[in-house]
This record gives sequence, C-alpha cells and structure tokens, in this order.
Amino acid sequence: MTQLSDRTAAAPARSELGRALLDPRSVAIIGASDDPRKTTARPLRFLRAAGFAGPVYPVNPRRETVLGERAWPDVASLPEVPDHVFVLTDTARVIDAVRECGEAGVPLVTILSGGFGEGGPEGRERLDELLATARRYGVRLVGPNSIGVVNPRTGMMLTANAAFAEAGVPTGPSFVASQSGSVIGALMTRAKARGLGFAGFVSTGSESDLTLGEICEATLDDPGIGSYTLFVESMENAGPLARFAAAAAERGRPVTVYKLGRSDAAAALSVSHTGALAGEDDEADAFFRACGFARVDNFEALIETEALLRRVGPPGPVPADRIGVITSTGGGAAIVVDQLETRGVTVARPSPEVFARLAALGLDVAQNLIVDLTLAGTRHDLVLGALDVLRSSGEFDLVLFVVGSSARLNPELAVAALAEAADGPVPLAAWALPDALESLRLLHDAGVPAFRTAEACAEAVAATLARRPADPEVLARREVPAPHGAVRTLDEVASARVLGGLGVAFPATTTCDVTGAPDTAPVYPAVVKALSNRLPHKSDAGAVVLGVADAPALAGAVATITANVAAHDPTLDLDRFVVQEMVGDTVVEALVGYRVSPTVGPLVLLAAGGVHTELYGDSALRLAPVTDAEAREMVEEVTAMRVARGFRGGPVGDLDALVETVVAVSRLAVTHPDVVEAEINPVAVRPQGSGVVALDALVRTADTRHPPEGPAWT
Amino acid sequence: MTQLSDRTAAAPARSELGRALLDPRSVAIIGASDDPRKTTARPLRFLRAAGFAGPVYPVNPRRETVLGERAWPDVASLPEVPDHVFVLTDTARVIDAVRECGEAGVPLVTILSGGFGEGGPEGRERLDELLATARRYGVRLVGPNSIGVVNPRTGMMLTANAAFAEAGVPTGPSFVASQSGSVIGALMTRAKARGLGFAGFVSTGSESDLTLGEICEATLDDPGIGSYTLFVESMENAGPLARFAAAAAERGRPVTVYKLGRSDAAAALSVSHTGALAGEDDEADAFFRACGFARVDNFEALIETEALLRRVGPPGPVPADRIGVITSTGGGAAIVVDQLETRGVTVARPSPEVFARLAALGLDVAQNLIVDLTLAGTRHDLVLGALDVLRSSGEFDLVLFVVGSSARLNPELAVAALAEAADGPVPLAAWALPDALESLRLLHDAGVPAFRTAEACAEAVAATLARRPADPEVLARREVPAPHGAVRTLDEVASARVLGGLGVAFPATTTCDVTGAPDTAPVYPAVVKALSNRLPHKSDAGAVVLGVADAPALAGAVATITANVAAHDPTLDLDRFVVQEMVGDTVVEALVGYRVSPTVGPLVLLAAGGVHTELYGDSALRLAPVTDAEAREMVEEVTAMRVARGFRGGPVGDLDALVETVVAVSRLAVTHPDVVEAEINPVAVRPQGSGVVALDALVRTADTRHPPEGPAWT
Repeated sequence: MTQLSDRTAAAPARSELGRALLDPRSVAIIGASDDPRKTTARPLRFLRAAGFAGPVYPVNPRRETVLGERAWPDVASLPEVPDHVFVLTDTARVIDAVRECGEAGVPLVTILSGGFGEGGPEGRERLDELLATARRYGVRLVGPNSIGVVNPRTGMMLTANAAFAEAGVPTGPSFVASQSGSVIGALMTRAKARGLGFAGFVSTGSESDLTLGEICEATLDDPGIGSYTLFVESMENAGPLARFAAAAAERGRPVTVYKLGRSDAAAALSVSHTGALAGEDDEADAFFRACGFARVDNFEALIETEALLRRVGPPGPVPADRIGVITSTGGGAAIVVDQLETRGVTVARPSPEVFARLAALGLDVAQNLIVDLTLAGTRHDLVLGALDVLRSSGEFDLVLFVVGSSARLNPELAVAALAEAADGPVPLAAWALPDALESLRLLHDAGVPAFRTAEACAEAVAATLARRPADPEVLARREVPAPHGAVRTLDEVASARVLGGLGVAFPATTTCDVTGAPDTAPVYPAVVKALSNRLPHKSDAGAVVLGVADAPALAGAVATITANVAAHDPTLDLDRFVVQEMVGDTVVEALVGYRVSPTVGPLVLLAAGGVHTELYGDSALRLAPVTDAEAREMVEEVTAMRVARGFRGGPVGDLDALVETVVAVSRLAVTHPDVVEAEINPVAVRPQGSGVVALDALVRTADTRHPPEGPAWT
Repeated sequence: MTQLSDRTAAAPARSELGRALLDPRSVAIIGASDDPRKTTARPLRFLRAAGFAGPVYPVNPRRETVLGERAWPDVASLPEVPDHVFVLTDTARVIDAVRECGEAGVPLVTILSGGFGEGGPEGRERLDELLATARRYGVRLVGPNSIGVVNPRTGMMLTANAAFAEAGVPTGPSFVASQSGSVIGALMTRAKARGLGFAGFVSTGSESDLTLGEICEATLDDPGIGSYTLFVESMENAGPLARFAAAAAERGRPVTVYKLGRSDAAAALSVSHTGALAGEDDEADAFFRACGFARVDNFEALIETEALLRRVGPPGPVPADRIGVITSTGGGAAIVVDQLETRGVTVARPSPEVFARLAALGLDVAQNLIVDLTLAGTRHDLVLGALDVLRSSGEFDLVLFVVGSSARLNPELAVAALAEAADGPVPLAAWALPDALESLRLLHDAGVPAFRTAEACAEAVAATLARRPADPEVLARREVPAPHGAVRTLDEVASARVLGGLGVAFPATTTCDVTGAPDTAPVYPAVVKALSNRLPHKSDAGAVVLGVADAPALAGAVATITANVAAHDPTLDLDRFVVQEMVGDTVVEALVGYRVSPTVGPLVLLAAGGVHTELYGDSALRLAPVTDAEAREMVEEVTAMRVARGFRGGPVGDLDALVETVVAVSRLAVTHPDVVEAEINPVAVRPQGSGVVALDALVRTADTRHPPEGPAWT
C-alpha cells in the first residue's frame, strides 16, 4: 500500500488531529445530495437528526439548497474553515475536493469514494496524485473507501452507514476502529440491543494515509474513551498500531480485537490481499499478544469483552487465571465450564474450607468443581453470603456467576445480589442461561460484566486471561526498518558462528579440505558434511556421512561426498567439509527459527522437529526478542516437547537449555539487524543437565546499504 | 443405573404412553401447595394460566382447597383415573404416591422429588423399592428429579420450571427432551426471543425408568412433531436412543443434539458420573453420527439448527456440501466464511459462468469466493435475480445469504426477496450482520432458516453437512447385550487366527519350540518373539529379536529370549516362540482397534501409530461394523495418514488396503460376539499395491455363558 513517506511534515499535532476527527467545531460535506433517498444525503440527515451542535456546511456547486439548507459552492466560500470535511463526490472530483480543502487549511478530510489504488494502474496513479495533493497542503486523510466517522456523544454522525439513521445511538466507553464499514453499524445495533454503547466509530477504509493505528493514537487524549474495539481485516502498518498499543497500555486502556482470516479463505476475502499470505494470521496473533490486546474469535464477544477487561485491569507479570464458578443452574454452569475448558481455561475447584464456610452459612452445597446453589436457593442474602465466601477465600482471581431462570423472572434475587456486590476485591462476571436482556443491562450498569451467550462469555474470559503485559521495547522494534537489499545465505560454519556468538551450543566442529586434512583435531566418531551455501538439503545430495571413526575414514568420507555431490550438481565445486562430533542420547528434536516479517517485523519460532510441524502445525510463534518467561510459554505450547517430560516413562530432556536457545536466537532482532532469516534444524534436546545442541544451522542476511523507499512494515 | 428388567410387561402401548405424556385427557398433581410462592404450587398455577382444557385434580390430604380449587385426599377418590400424575411430595411420600397411582390404574407418573439413587445405599434402596412398586402396577415413570413435562400446544404445563410462568410459551415443530431441567426453560425463552417455538418439553430427570430415548420414541406418532432437540448430559441407555434414531430417520424427522462433556471437567459435572469416563464424549460423537443426528457445540444453535435440517432434508449417500455465499456486506460474509472454514466447511467458489450470468443481469459483482452485491445494491428484484442465478447453476447444494444493514432498516429489500424465494430447488439460509430480530422472524416464518449469530449459523451449517444417513443395522446392534463374564487374552498366534479369519493380512508366520525347531519352514530374515498372553509389552521384556537370518540364528534368538524373559519374570515359563517374516518398506504405521463400550456397544478405531495418537489425539472412532465409505472417511480423518499420500515427495501407501483392514476388524461386531477388545499395533502400510500387514495383534474375549443381570448398555 502506498504511504505518505513524510507524513508528519505539515500535519497537525496529534491532539489537534484527534479533535478534528471526533470533536470538530464545524464540518462540511462535499457532494451532499438533496435527494433524501441517496446515500450521499445521509450524513447531513443523520447530523441533523442527532442534533450535532456545531455548524454543518453542505457543499454543492450545482444547488442553492440541499435538504432545505443553504448549499455552498465550494470550501473557499464558507464563513469559516471546517475542522473535518466528508467527501462524497464521485471518484473523478475527489482530488479537486481535497485540493480545495488544502487551500482553505482544512486539517482532516474523510473520503467515502472508492477507485483509489484498486483497479489497475489508473487507480494507483489516482491514489498517488491524491496523496501528493494531501501532502502538499498537510491535509490528513481518513479513507478512501471510508463509510465515515461517528461520535455519538456529540451527535457527530459524519457517516453514510445506514445504521446510524436511527435515533439513540448508544454511548459508552469504547472507541471502535474498523477496517470494515458495515461492521460499525452491526456493532452499534448489537450493542444497543444489549444495553451497551460506544465513544466513537471510525471506518478506516483503505488507510492510504491515516492507518488504523494512527487513528487510534489520535484519540489517546480523549478522556471519554475507556477502551478500544478493533475490527481488523488484514495486518499492515503494524508500526503505528504497535506505537498505539504501547501508549494505550501505559494509559491502562484495554484493547479488544477481532481479526478476519483465521481461515485462509477468509484471509483471501480481506480488503488488502497481502493480508492473505499464509501464516499471516499466526503473525498477527503473535503481534496482538505482544500488544497486550485481547483477541476474540466470537463476534459478539468483540462488544462484550471490553467491560471485563476494564473490570479485571491490565495483565500482571503473574497470570491471574483462577476462575471460580458459582451458579443457580447446574446445567447452565456445565455449559460454560465446557466452553471455558475447550478454550483452554481451567476452572479452579474451591477448597474444602470454602465449602465448610458455605455450610456454616446454612448453604447446602455439594463439594464439586463449581458451587451449585440450586438446592440452597438464590435468595438475595444467601447469594451475597456465598459471593463473599468465594471472594474472601483468596482462591480466585475472577468469580463467574451463571444465573438460572431467576435472571428472567426474579432479578431481585441473584441478579440484584450480584449488582450489589459489583465492587468487591475480586472481579465478578455473569452469564444468564435464559434470555434475560434486562438483567444483563442491570448487571452491566452496576459494573458486573454480563454476557448474552455462553460462547461469548467463555471467549471473553479466555481472551482476558490470555493477555500478557505489552512490552514497549519489543513493540518499538516494529518500527525499525526491515533488512533490505540483496539476500545472502551463509554456509553452515558461518551460520554457526553468528548463532554461536549469541550463545547457541554446537557440537565440537572443525573443517577439512578435499584430502581430509582437518584444521584442528576432530572429535570422533564424527559426522562429515559438505560445506556449501548451495546445498540446503545435504542428505538428498549424498553430502552427509555418519559415524566416521578416524582419519582414514574421514578421508574416505570426503571422497564419497565429493563424488556424490559432483554427480548431484557438476557446477558445484566443493573445497571444504564440516567434521562434527556425533551427538547421542537425544530425547527429542526441535526446530528453532527466526524471520523478519514484512508485516510485523522480527519473529522467533519454536516447532516440533521432523514431520510433526507440517502434519500437526505443532509450533509457537512470538515477536522477537522474547524473555525467558515467553520462551518457556513457547515450550509449553509445542505439544511434541511433552516427549521431553518423561513421556511414557522416557527420559526427561533439558528444556531449560531449549528455553535459553530460543531466547538467544530471538536476540538476533537486537544484535543483527542485517539477518532476515535463521533456522536451527534440528536442535537436539538432550537429557536433563546435558543441554541442547544445534546440529545444523542456516542464516540469511540482507545487504542493507541501500536505503529503502520507506519503512518496510510501517 | 438400576433398570426395570421387564419393563414392558403391563406397560401401556407406546402410542398410549405418548398420549399420556403429552396429551393426557386429565392430570393430577400430588402434593400441590396452596402457597402460590411455593415451587409445588407452580404446576397448578401454570396449567390454569395456560388454559389447559382437561380436568386437573390437585391431591392434598391436608387441605380442603388448593389455590381456591377443591383438593382431593387421594387418587382413589378422584372421579376418574388421570392419564398423567405429577408427584411433588417430599421424598418419603413418593413411593406411597406411586402405589396409589398404580392401584388406581394411572399409566404414567412424573416425579419431581429427588433422593432416589443418589446419596448412598439408602437412596439406592429407595430407588429399588420405587421401581419395584411401579413394575408391580405397570406404571411408567418420568424422573425422579424431573422438573416436568410441557405441551405448549394444549397448555399442558405439568412443570415446576419457573420459566413457564409466563404467558405465550411459543409453539413450533420441535420436541425437546433434556437431561437438565433448567435448560428447557432456557431453550424456551431464547427461542421465544427469536420467534421460534416447540411442540413439547420433557425433563427426563434421572431416567430410572423411562429413558430419554424411550421418551422420544413415545412421541413418534405425534403428528405435531417435526423435529427433535436433545440436551444430553451423559450417554447411557444408548439402546433405546438408537431405536428412536432409526425410527426418527425412517419418518424423516431430524434430530439436533447438544451434549455436555467436550471437556472432562464438564463431563464430571454431568448428573450421571459414569458419564465422566475418559473418551466417553468421543464414543457419544461416534454414536450420534451413526444415529444421523446433527451435533452442535453452540447452545443457541441447538434452537436454530432444526429449521435448516428440515429444509435441507435427510442426508443422502453422497454428501451435499457445496455451500454458496452471497451477501450485501463483504465484511459480514467474511466473518461467516471464517466461522465456516474453521469448522471444516469449505465454501464453493462460483464458476465464471455464474458471474457472467450475474453481469448479464446488470449486477456489478467482482469474481471472488463469494457473490458480493454491495456495489450492485440490494434491490428486491436484483437479489431475486442473483438468487435465481446461483440456485439454477447446479453448483450449490445450499445458498447462504449474509444480509447487511438493510436487514434492520429495509426488510423490504434483500430480506423480502429471500422470503419470496424461500421455496426454491436449492435451500436458502440467512445470517444478518446487524441486530435484526424482526427480519429473522420474517425469514423463519417464510421458511428460510435464519440465524442470530455468525457462530450459530456456521455451527448449524457444519453440523447439517456432517450428518450421515442413519444405519438401522448398526443401530440395532446397540441392543445386543455386551459380552460379559471372565475376560481372556489370546496369545499372538490365536489373536492372529481370529483376525486373519476376517481377512486381516499377517506376515508369513510359524512357531518353534525352546530348541528353535519350527513347525513349518520359516521365511528368513525373520523376527522372533516370545509367544505368551502374559507379555503384552514384549520388547520391554527383551522378548523380541530382529533380523534372524537362518536356523542357527533362530536357535540363538530363542535362547536369548528365554534368558531375558526368565530374568524379567521367573514365574513365566515359555515354551513357544513366534517366527515371523520381516516386513520392509513401510510407508506409515497405523493402529487399528476394536472395543465394546458398555455405553454405546461395538466401536472400531483407527489411529496414528507410535506416539502421535497420544500426543495429538490423532484418531478416528466409529460404531462397528463400518462400511468401506465410513472406513475411508476414518482414513481421511487421521492426519498421520497423509504421510502415505506422497507427503514431501515420499512414496504413496496402500490406503485402500488399510480401509479393507478397518472394515474387516469392525466385522468382529457381527462375527465374534464374544470379543470385547482387539488391537493391531502396528499395521504397516506398504507402498501402493503391496497392501498392509498386521505386525502384532491382541484379542480379548469374554466368557458369555452366564447371562447378565440386564442388557449392559440399554
């Protein structure tokens, strides 16, 4: 996607941009239609219906009036310079409109029209001219292809999204930035039905100038915003988003994100087709985790999660994941427990002491994984008592109450008790088994996050617990330009030198020439391999000989390999060979990789060795560099590493050493800005205390002398 | 769980039972309270509020009147014999109440009270007496622990579930049988909010007499029932449920099921704790599949799926899985595509011809995976035209329309067009991106299955496509008593004889004595193994020698094994040894297993060999016996079998032969009623055309002479 290379030149300061975006003193609509049925008539209608207080100037050179209001011929003739202009004209007239705005000194223009960047060279030329024009005057752009911007707090309905025709767009703490225009209407209507609301909506369109991250950044000093809700179709411009993530974390504003493209099919449907790259979603996942975002895969959870995030607060270094479940419906609680556990959330069983204290209150509760009040009843005072027992036990970080039919018929019982107990030490959350929207509203207004479906509830809890603290240092690294220029593959010895320098352990290794004369004394038995950066798959070329016992055998091995390789590729002339100590007693093999993604920057990968990764996708990916704790989580995530935990009575492997190796490789992001890719395959994990050894390694570097056109992934 | 061993003795014919259950001419309530706040007052209040037409007799010996109505001292004094009696008394008086009913000739009693079977020996004694009493008089029981029975079509609200206090319980085609009492209220209220309804509700309680399957069977001749909705906490009594499944399939009545226990934690919460057996959920899954049920893991999908099942019709032998997606919101469609693909449903891309025909209608639609009308607009006639193009193309078995904001604001556009086109050749379904309950109602009433959330929509579509035709022969086998009595493990040779008889291929094998003298000429090189049913893990005992080249080597191998085994287990005296041809060029190893589950009967398993099954749960389970087609599906399901499909340029394995082996082993269910368990581990899959070979086998049989107390799994 083309970018403004020097976008901050004449641009307004962020706070000014934020004000123009959500709190403009005055707005103008270029291309406002007089025909109320037309899409281009909507913004003026919506602004008036919502009673936006500031001046609104319809600009339409072809008419005296628009929808009964005075129409202005152009921006120059307006009595004042509007803070925010919405351009609804056809594609051909957009650039003139932006020029008009620039000449008048308008800081911000939102563009509905499409036809920029899409549809071949013509569209791309048009886009370049649009951006050049905006840059010339220091005008910032939302869109093109933006359905508009809404601030329900002020009635600032600068949008053509039909959903905003209705009265009473609900206000609340969350700001929505969406790469899909129709989704902002869907979030609004579904939230409204639930009694939830928003602080603002921006349809980011094709993000030719202002990206989703920059738009969110611009709102950081808006005191009316308590959380962020992002709908992402494709990951690009991760740099600004990372900057925003760090700032939002600093301000304690939680972020919930729903991203399309869990499946490749949907990824291919996303607006920007670079988004469809295989593995792109895994990279996005690693990125969101480093951002401290809560990613949900359930659409209504995108609305409902933010309240839980605000109530629970930012994630600490130690995960607070002890979930207590209390209920007035055994069946309902079992549904949520099932949904939680299938999302990897384990419910914490109350101790016998807890049940003893409940019994002391006269509560007849069976000792089980959950506290089931069905027999005890949902009397207001009993529920309060039970909640107090659970929250004061020190056994839970979050208490989830599953309310039965009383949620619909007797809100004065359990629901009222929950609302009353909202502000306790341990956060409460609730799901109602029956349809009970009124009770959900009541709970939410009292400060108890409440959910409509068991799936959204479980998804919200799981996503909340999965958050990790945002790491500003790692995030800042997303703005370092990617290595560029010609890419070079280092041979095994040079690659080992780079990685060895970071602390990765290799077996005793030397090299020899075609006669088998080694540089230094080899350690026997040895593996002999051809040394060449042109043989990525040595075994296939017969370029590996195992179990070489002594000097004569070494000479023989060298001869064999020379012959095999000559037969495999006559153009390849071989003069050096690796002589490497053989490594025994491997408990399990792993793959440790590193790459710089054009989207999200440096990444480190841990995967099962052999075919497992490919067959079962058994791997863990993180933004690089990682801490010990993160590397440990990665080892936990890779199923095959269980083999090194005394699986089936086998030996225990040195997973601590594997953790150190993952951390070391991830440091490439800090120490080697020229490395674009590295892979150790396999890493032999040896018995506890014997460490791990890298049996083969490959490093690719980029020639970074020529400066890039612009930051590669911002 | 205790059963009535001869339950059909004096019991009413099924149709009579069904009538007594849902359409009783008169009902009595034993233990009806005069205090309207009491749970035991609810059934009378609800029946009156709903205007049940037949006589209702409150029985309460302690009062002249109950809630202003004449109260009767006992059942004997009633002016007629009620068809259905609801017992609300405390536990101690339940058995007397059932006796009263029996003496009066009441055919059916539903019991609210608990305390039967639960809580130690006392509860079990009480249960035995209850069942003996019922049996003596031929009274059938629903419960104990049943919240009651509801027929909204007649106002027959014989329930204590508070949710049924409200007026206007919605009627519809689906009959609900639930093992959770509170869930019936939740389904009713959530369906009501969606404009959906039910033909009846039964809370099956602890199923001490009538099981969920028998209760559904009893309703099969009710013409008002079009589909079944089951909420299952634990799989027991699979026999009657299988019988019901076959009958429902015969009548073309679809069944949707939600089962708790995807996670072990939730399984442990289910009422009956035999339900918590590990693997129990996989067995249930295999069972539901054979039943032709649609299993959903999304709670609201349990309400919404039945309409899609009725519209799509019963599954045919060839899967009809070509889903076309058309939309007026690109973002919304991408959400559903993502949800579908993550559930394994692939969206079918329209051909260029389809896009050409759309263009001919003047529809500006980009050629993509989906048909996006956003630019073309959602004009009523355009949508009708587009739907016709897709449905007449012969490219789709189901067309899913994702409606944008017009679903909320302009139902006269796309929604009206969908409703109008409801009865076409190819079924339609719809999801609305915004909150649009009115449109969902409109669509549903017109016969277009419509969904509230993208997740429920995708879940319903996936579950509908995953259905297979019910197999009456396989289902009937669920009622064959399980093998019982002492279990015997056959040695390798005897095991191979049983499986070989079914057509499973083994390598050339002979046996020899302690001197190494073989019965018949061995094929060298050979593997030599100790022959004993007391050595399940031969290698660990040093009881296997590979690569035996000739007779002298054979004698040596036998001596080595004898020594090793003697050291391993002195009590084990070895006199025979297996001499088996060595098998080379194995492409991939698999495990084929067979077992008779006490819950669902004979099962066949295909799993990845080695550690894969354990690490990745890489296996496929089906009720036995299976057809070729089913076995082929199993091979598709096991990820590791991809290794035999030219994975990474490797050889192609003989998966057809593996399919035959799975079918052969599954035939044990038919040919060997005494076999309780069999395992071939490993099965070596050899290159295409070379078949598969069973390298080791184990069969366990049960002595079936002594008859069991009762059918083990009915």
